Amino acid sequence: MQNSILTVGSMAFDSVQTPAGKAEQVLGGSVNYFSVAASFFSPVQIVAVVGEDFPDSHLKWLETRKINTKGVQKAPGKTFHWVGSYDQNLNEAKTLSTFLNVFEHFNPTLTDEQKKASYLFLGNIDPVLQTRVLEQNTSHKLVAMDSMNFWITGKPTELKQTLKQIDVLSINEGEAYLLSGQKNIVRAAQTIRDMGPSVLIIKRGEFGAALFTDTGTFLAPAYPTATVVDPTGAGDSFAGAFFGYIASHGFDRTTAKSHPEKWDHELRNAVLHGCVMASFTVEDFSLHRLMRLEKAEFDLRFKTMTQMIKV
Amino acid sequence: MQNSILTVGSMAFDSVQTPAGKAEQVLGGSVNYFSVAASFFSPVQIVAVVGEDFPDSHLKWLETRKINTKGVQKAPGKTFHWVGSYDQNLNEAKTLSTFLNVFEHFNPTLTDEQKKASYLFLGNIDPVLQTRVLEQNTSHKLVAMDSMNFWITGKPTELKQTLKQIDVLSINEGEAYLLSGQKNIVRAAQTIRDMGPSVLIIKRGEFGAALFTDTGTFLAPAYPTATVVDPTGAGDSFAGAFFGYIASHGFDRTTAKSHPEKWDHELRNAVLHGCVMASFTVEDFSLHRLMRLEKAEFDLRFKTMTQMIKV
Repeated sequence: MQNSILTVGSMAFDSVQTPAGKAEQVLGGSVNYFSVAASFFSPVQIVAVVGEDFPDSHLKWLETRKINTKGVQKAPGKTFHWVGSYDQNLNEAKTLSTFLNVFEHFNPTLTDEQKKASYLFLGNIDPVLQTRVLEQNTSHKLVAMDSMNFWITGKPTELKQTLKQIDVLSINEGEAYLLSGQKNIVRAAQTIRDMGPSVLIIKRGEFGAALFTDTGTFLAPAYPTATVVDPTGAGDSFAGAFFGYIASHGFDRTTAKSHPEKWDHELRNAVLHGCVMASFTVEDFSLHRLMRLEKAEFDLRFKTMTQMIKV
Repeated sequence: MQNSILTVGSMAFDSVQTPAGKAEQVLGGSVNYFSVAASFFSPVQIVAVVGEDFPDSHLKWLETRKINTKGVQKAPGKTFHWVGSYDQNLNEAKTLSTFLNVFEHFNPTLTDEQKKASYLFLGNIDPVLQTRVLEQNTSHKLVAMDSMNFWITGKPTELKQTLKQIDVLSINEGEAYLLSGQKNIVRAAQTIRDMGPSVLIIKRGEFGAALFTDTGTFLAPAYPTATVVDPTGAGDSFAGAFFGYIASHGFDRTTAKSHPEKWDHELRNAVLHGCVMASFTVEDFSLHRLMRLEKAEFDLRFKTMTQMIKV
């Protein structure tokens, strides 16, 4: 499909503790948050791996949202499991355990349909696997990706190789400092954009996100929700709404280059969509809030958000 | 004067260490930062106390900026001295020592001219002294104030008494949580506005500021400067530009009530002026950057700032 997104990432069970409570073995994983958020705007195809313990009912539910799960491999063994906690500073997750399980031998292989997807989002996995997906998807018009500390320090060479081939990078502020070796957001952005991605989004948790493009800088606050239960998945659902919004409008790297102002405007709107989506995600554990979110509810909050940043 | 600001606060020497370097016994104090920032927009009168060691040359320099220093008492002894440091997390100052010196017996007494000032800004001092200034200034059309952890925990009853009599409160995010007993910015804002001030500004360091009024919420990012040398005085110069801007337009609590939308628009612009001013302050130690700041330079950065938040 013309504006279909292909995404690769983790499907997981999460066990998480926050100041608001505790959730055991609930649905999680970057690709889950990303694709549910993106599906509000564009059709999505998933490449991922789950274990035999992963509920078919969830994959079926994803299909009702026009999320194509044909690329989700079921492998012998258990699903990836993340155990983490947040203290009062909800911006920082503390990883207590990571059980890679079936994820350890994950080798993403695209279906023919997936090879033709126009929009590619490389979720936060091994940069070697990210590149492998990128190389199989020969028809991409725009590629975005996420990464994290683990790969920045563990596979810097491979990561930098991947960065050269993408259009949009979306990472956390702390990761931006680690990747760039800078301690200041302006300098970090310059350094990272020199590594490849012409568009950089630095996610700042409860403080929103900063967008850096050839045209300028855009600073978006987070939507201040009164109910923060669990920040897990905020960044992934941010990316999902961001990229889903962009794909729905058919922008690609060619039109972006020929219409830089329009592209910048599109990106700013996309970032705001990401901020609003993330604000819903954090209101409950797991994907619970996103699963019961109505588009009308989203639109209402988006309208409030635009009023909150207007002078 | 019609739009003259009267402010009370500390004049100090600061000794400060940051990742960028070190400054010994340099000019500081909330009233210094506030009044220099405010004087870009409105005339300012100061109530403060200094010791015999305070340089007359500095008071003379303030006078060249239309800052009336007649209310600065010179007392026997030494000027208030703050010793602090910042680690990589530039948002949080660590106080190493505080020498109150002449500040210990400070009893603010207003001149006749000061009693007639229309705009009153109560800098971060003992709430008992803040009230004393407030009661002497009988003609105020708008009162704003700042406070801090020390008074929130040390003199909560007196502070709450002062809060009932003011229009605008400007405090840091951590202080807002401490004052409200809430852990969330939306809830904290509701609780604090119920204590008295109809306008609340929560300052968030490098993440900007949030404004809460009867009309709604405004979220402003900090201006991202590439050069951060010393965050000392950022909050005070934010408040100075904010309040100076408001005073220059003649808004008061009566017009605010009768024109809530205009008032809200005015406040949003004032907050942005505060953010831009603070971004200059942090570019050097002490008041050095503000002292060499040209209005045209400010205006240019303000214009860039408005482009950075526009969708």
